[in-house]
Amino acid sequence: MAQTAGLVLFAHGARDPEWAEPFRAIADRVAADRGDLSVKLAFLEFQGPALHEAIAELVAAGRRVIHVAPLFMAQGGHLKNDVPKLLAEIRGRHPGLVIDLLPAIGDVPELRAAIAGWLTGTVPGTPA
Amino acid sequence: MAQTAGLVLFAHGARDPEWAEPFRAIADRVAADRGDLSVKLAFLEFQGPALHEAIAELVAAGRRVIHVAPLFMAQGGHLKNDVPKLLAEIRGRHPGLVIDLLPAIGDVPELRAAIAGWLTGTVPGTPA
Repeated sequence: MAQTAGLVLFAHGARDPEWAEPFRAIADRVAADRGDLSVKLAFLEFQGPALHEAIAELVAAGRRVIHVAPLFMAQGGHLKNDVPKLLAEIRGRHPGLVIDLLPAIGDVPELRAAIAGWLTGTVPGTPA
Repeated sequence: MAQTAGLVLFAHGARDPEWAEPFRAIADRVAADRGDLSVKLAFLEFQGPALHEAIAELVAAGRRVIHVAPLFMAQGGHLKNDVPKLLAEIRGRHPGLVIDLLPAIGDVPELRAAIAGWLTGTVPGTPA
Protein backbone atom coordinates (compact mmCIF):
# COMPACT_ATOMS: atom_id res chain seq x y z
CA MET A 1 0.00 0.00 0.00
CA ALA A 2 2.89 2.34 0.73
CA GLN A 3 3.84 1.83 -2.93
CA THR A 4 0.82 3.53 -4.50
CA ALA A 5 1.39 6.89 -6.11
CA GLY A 6 -0.56 10.06 -5.48
CA LEU A 7 -2.24 12.28 -8.04
CA VAL A 8 -3.07 15.89 -7.24
CA LEU A 9 -5.46 17.70 -9.55
CA PHE A 10 -4.30 21.27 -9.11
CA ALA A 11 -6.72 24.03 -10.15
CA HIS A 12 -6.68 27.81 -9.88
CA GLY A 13 -9.51 28.18 -7.36
CA ALA A 14 -12.20 30.87 -7.19
CA ARG A 15 -14.25 32.73 -4.60
CA ASP A 16 -17.35 30.82 -5.68
CA PRO A 17 -17.20 27.33 -4.10
CA GLU A 18 -19.33 25.90 -6.94
CA TRP A 19 -16.42 26.63 -9.25
CA ALA A 20 -14.69 23.49 -7.96
CA GLU A 21 -17.51 21.09 -8.92
CA PRO A 22 -16.13 20.02 -12.33
CA PHE A 23 -12.78 19.29 -10.73
CA ARG A 24 -14.42 17.12 -8.08
CA ALA A 25 -16.26 15.23 -10.82
CA ILE A 26 -13.00 14.65 -12.73
CA ALA A 27 -11.19 13.56 -9.53
CA ASP A 28 -13.99 11.11 -8.67
CA ARG A 29 -13.89 9.61 -12.14
CA VAL A 30 -10.11 9.14 -12.15
CA ALA A 31 -10.22 7.67 -8.64
CA ALA A 32 -12.93 5.21 -9.75
CA ASP A 33 -10.87 4.11 -12.77
CA ARG A 34 -7.47 4.03 -11.09
CA GLY A 35 -7.67 2.24 -7.75
CA ASP A 36 -3.86 2.30 -7.61
CA LEU A 37 -3.78 6.10 -7.26
CA SER A 38 -4.66 8.29 -4.28
CA VAL A 39 -6.38 11.25 -5.92
CA LYS A 40 -6.66 14.68 -4.27
CA LEU A 41 -7.66 18.18 -5.31
CA ALA A 42 -5.63 21.29 -4.50
CA PHE A 43 -5.98 24.96 -5.38
CA LEU A 44 -3.64 27.88 -6.03
CA GLU A 45 -5.83 30.51 -4.41
CA PHE A 46 -9.24 31.41 -2.92
CA GLN A 47 -9.95 27.87 -1.69
CA GLY A 48 -8.14 24.95 -0.11
CA PRO A 49 -6.37 22.70 0.32
CA ALA A 50 -3.19 24.32 -0.96
CA LEU A 51 -0.80 22.23 -3.07
CA HIS A 52 1.63 21.72 -0.18
CA GLU A 53 -1.23 20.56 2.08
CA ALA A 54 -2.56 17.99 -0.38
CA ILE A 55 0.95 16.67 -0.98
CA ALA A 56 1.74 16.55 2.76
CA GLU A 57 -1.37 14.39 3.26
CA LEU A 58 -0.27 12.01 0.52
CA VAL A 59 3.24 11.79 1.99
CA ALA A 60 1.79 11.17 5.46
CA ALA A 61 -0.16 8.29 3.93
CA GLY A 62 3.07 6.78 2.58
CA ARG A 63 3.11 8.01 -1.02
CA ARG A 64 6.64 8.64 -2.33
CA VAL A 65 5.69 9.49 -5.93
CA ILE A 66 3.25 12.33 -6.61
CA HIS A 67 1.89 13.32 -10.00
CA VAL A 68 0.60 16.88 -10.20
CA ALA A 69 -1.88 17.62 -12.99
CA PRO A 70 -2.45 21.37 -13.43
CA LEU A 71 -6.06 21.74 -14.55
CA PHE A 72 -5.35 25.09 -16.16
CA MET A 73 -6.32 25.91 -19.73
CA ALA A 74 -2.83 27.16 -20.62
CA GLN A 75 0.60 27.95 -19.25
CA GLY A 76 0.94 31.53 -18.07
CA GLY A 77 2.55 33.13 -15.06
CA HIS A 78 0.89 30.72 -12.64
CA LEU A 79 2.37 27.61 -14.22
CA LYS A 80 5.63 29.16 -15.36
CA ASN A 81 6.48 31.05 -12.16
CA ASP A 82 4.23 30.21 -9.21
CA VAL A 83 4.12 26.44 -9.55
CA PRO A 84 7.91 25.87 -9.89
CA LYS A 85 8.38 27.96 -6.71
CA LEU A 86 5.71 25.97 -4.87
CA LEU A 87 7.23 22.66 -6.01
CA ALA A 88 10.77 23.72 -5.01
CA GLU A 89 9.50 24.57 -1.54
CA ILE A 90 7.56 21.28 -1.29
CA ARG A 91 10.59 19.26 -2.45
CA GLY A 92 12.61 20.97 0.28
CA ARG A 93 10.11 19.84 2.89
CA HIS A 94 10.00 16.23 1.65
CA PRO A 95 13.50 14.99 0.73
CA GLY A 96 13.39 12.00 -1.61
CA LEU A 97 9.82 12.66 -2.72
CA VAL A 98 9.38 12.30 -6.49
CA ILE A 99 7.08 14.96 -7.95
CA ASP A 100 6.09 14.70 -11.61
CA LEU A 101 4.39 17.72 -13.19
CA LEU A 102 1.97 16.98 -16.03
CA PRO A 103 1.21 19.50 -18.81
CA ALA A 104 -1.64 22.03 -18.77
CA ILE A 105 -4.90 20.99 -20.46
CA GLY A 106 -4.26 23.16 -23.53
CA ASP A 107 -0.77 21.71 -23.97
CA VAL A 108 -2.12 18.17 -24.41
CA PRO A 109 -2.81 17.59 -28.13
CA GLU A 110 -5.61 15.07 -27.51
CA LEU A 111 -7.39 17.46 -25.15
CA ARG A 112 -7.09 20.33 -27.62
CA ALA A 113 -8.55 17.94 -30.20
CA ALA A 114 -11.38 16.98 -27.82
CA ILE A 115 -12.28 20.65 -27.26
CA ALA A 116 -12.09 21.45 -30.98
CA GLY A 117 -14.12 18.34 -31.80
CA TRP A 118 -16.77 19.22 -29.26
CA LEU A 119 -17.07 22.74 -30.72
CA THR A 120 -17.16 21.41 -34.28
CA GLY A 121 -19.97 19.04 -33.36
CA THR A 122 -21.93 21.38 -31.07
CA VAL A 123 -22.13 24.77 -32.73
CA PRO A 124 -25.23 24.69 -34.95
CA GLY A 125 -24.80 24.84 -38.69
CA THR A 126 -25.70 27.86 -40.73
CA PRO A 127 -29.36 27.80 -41.79
CA ALA A 128 -29.78 27.30 -45.54
CA MET B 1 -22.31 34.63 -47.11
CA ALA B 2 -24.13 37.07 -44.86
CA GLN B 3 -25.87 33.98 -43.45
CA THR B 4 -22.83 32.34 -41.86
CA ALA B 5 -22.64 32.40 -38.09
CA GLY B 6 -19.70 33.56 -36.00
CA LEU B 7 -17.96 31.65 -33.24
CA VAL B 8 -15.92 33.48 -30.63
CA LEU B 9 -13.57 31.42 -28.47
CA PHE B 10 -13.45 33.53 -25.33
CA ALA B 11 -10.56 32.93 -22.94
CA HIS B 12 -9.36 34.64 -19.78
CA GLY B 13 -6.13 36.08 -21.14
CA ALA B 14 -2.76 36.42 -19.41
CA ARG B 15 0.22 38.76 -19.36
CA ASP B 16 2.31 36.11 -21.14
CA PRO B 17 1.42 36.22 -24.87
CA GLU B 18 2.40 32.53 -25.24
CA TRP B 19 -0.54 31.69 -22.98
CA ALA B 20 -2.87 32.15 -25.96
CA GLU B 21 -1.18 29.52 -28.16
CA PRO B 22 -3.46 26.57 -27.27
CA PHE B 23 -6.50 28.73 -27.99
CA ARG B 24 -5.13 29.70 -31.40
CA ALA B 25 -4.54 26.01 -32.15
CA ILE B 26 -8.13 25.14 -31.15
CA ALA B 27 -9.52 28.07 -33.20
CA ASP B 28 -7.51 27.01 -36.28
CA ARG B 29 -8.76 23.44 -35.98
CA VAL B 30 -12.42 24.43 -35.65
CA ALA B 31 -12.07 26.89 -38.55
CA ALA B 32 -10.54 24.15 -40.71
CA ASP B 33 -13.38 21.72 -39.90
CA ARG B 34 -16.24 24.23 -40.06
CA GLY B 35 -15.94 26.36 -43.16
CA ASP B 36 -19.46 27.69 -42.44
CA LEU B 37 -18.30 29.49 -39.27
CA SER B 38 -16.21 32.63 -38.89
CA VAL B 39 -14.00 31.82 -35.91
CA LYS B 40 -12.37 34.49 -33.74
CA LEU B 41 -10.55 34.60 -30.41
CA ALA B 42 -11.33 37.13 -27.67
CA PHE B 43 -10.01 37.68 -24.15
CA LEU B 44 -11.42 38.95 -20.86
CA GLU B 45 -8.25 40.70 -19.74
CA PHE B 46 -4.51 41.27 -20.30
CA GLN B 47 -4.70 40.76 -24.06
CA GLY B 48 -6.98 41.58 -26.97
CA PRO B 49 -9.24 41.64 -28.78
CA ALA B 50 -11.95 42.12 -26.17
CA LEU B 51 -15.24 40.24 -26.57
CA HIS B 52 -17.09 43.31 -27.85
CA GLU B 53 -14.34 43.95 -30.43
CA ALA B 54 -14.39 40.40 -31.80
CA ILE B 55 -18.19 40.47 -32.00
CA ALA B 56 -18.22 43.93 -33.65
CA GLU B 57 -15.89 42.57 -36.37
CA LEU B 58 -18.19 39.62 -36.97
CA VAL B 59 -21.23 41.90 -37.15
CA ALA B 60 -19.41 44.24 -39.54
CA ALA B 61 -18.78 41.19 -41.74
CA GLY B 62 -22.52 40.45 -41.82
CA ARG B 63 -22.88 37.80 -39.09
CA ARG B 64 -26.21 38.00 -37.28
CA VAL B 65 -25.78 34.90 -35.09
CA ILE B 66 -22.77 34.64 -32.78
CA HIS B 67 -21.86 31.63 -30.65
CA VAL B 68 -19.59 32.43 -27.71
CA ALA B 69 -17.60 29.50 -26.29
CA PRO B 70 -16.00 30.39 -22.93
CA LEU B 71 -12.74 28.43 -22.81
CA PHE B 72 -12.67 28.53 -19.02
CA MET B 73 -12.20 25.45 -16.88
CA ALA B 74 -15.23 26.23 -14.71
CA GLN B 75 -17.91 28.80 -13.99
CA GLY B 76 -16.90 31.30 -11.34
CA GLY B 77 -17.31 35.04 -10.99
CA HIS B 78 -16.02 35.71 -14.52
CA LEU B 79 -18.68 33.60 -16.21
CA LYS B 80 -21.47 34.22 -13.72
CA ASN B 81 -21.04 37.99 -13.37
CA ASP B 82 -18.62 39.54 -15.86
CA VAL B 83 -19.77 37.74 -19.01
CA PRO B 84 -23.53 38.42 -18.61
CA LYS B 85 -22.70 42.14 -18.14
CA LEU B 86 -20.48 42.14 -21.23
CA LEU B 87 -23.14 40.36 -23.28
CA ALA B 88 -25.90 42.73 -22.12
CA GLU B 89 -23.79 45.68 -23.22
CA ILE B 90 -22.96 44.02 -26.56
CA ARG B 91 -26.63 43.20 -27.21
CA GLY B 92 -27.45 46.85 -26.54
CA ARG B 93 -24.96 47.90 -29.23
CA HIS B 94 -26.22 45.42 -31.82
CA PRO B 95 -30.04 45.22 -31.81
CA GLY B 96 -31.32 42.01 -33.37
CA LEU B 97 -28.02 40.17 -32.98
CA VAL B 98 -28.46 36.62 -31.67
CA ILE B 99 -25.78 35.66 -29.13
CA ASP B 100 -25.66 32.08 -27.90
CA LEU B 101 -23.43 31.33 -24.88
CA LEU B 102 -21.98 27.82 -24.70
CA PRO B 103 -21.03 26.12 -21.40
CA ALA B 104 -17.59 26.25 -19.77
CA ILE B 105 -15.22 23.36 -20.56
CA GLY B 106 -15.72 21.72 -17.15
CA ASP B 107 -19.52 21.88 -17.53
CA VAL B 108 -19.45 19.71 -20.67
CA PRO B 109 -19.72 16.04 -19.64
CA GLU B 110 -17.77 14.74 -22.65
CA LEU B 111 -14.90 17.16 -21.99
CA ARG B 112 -14.77 16.21 -18.30
CA ALA B 113 -14.66 12.59 -19.51
CA ALA B 114 -11.87 13.43 -21.97
CA ILE B 115 -9.78 15.03 -19.22
CA ALA B 116 -10.43 12.15 -16.79
CA GLY B 117 -9.67 9.61 -19.53
CA TRP B 118 -6.42 11.34 -20.42
CA LEU B 119 -5.33 11.33 -16.77
CA THR B 120 -6.37 7.70 -16.34
CA GLY B 121 -4.31 6.72 -19.37
CA THR B 122 -1.32 9.00 -18.76
CA VAL B 123 -0.40 8.80 -15.09
CA PRO B 124 2.04 5.88 -14.76
CA GLY B 125 0.97 2.81 -12.87
CA THR B 126 2.36 1.95 -9.48
CA PRO B 127 5.53 -0.09 -9.76
CA ALA B 128 5.05 -3.68 -8.62
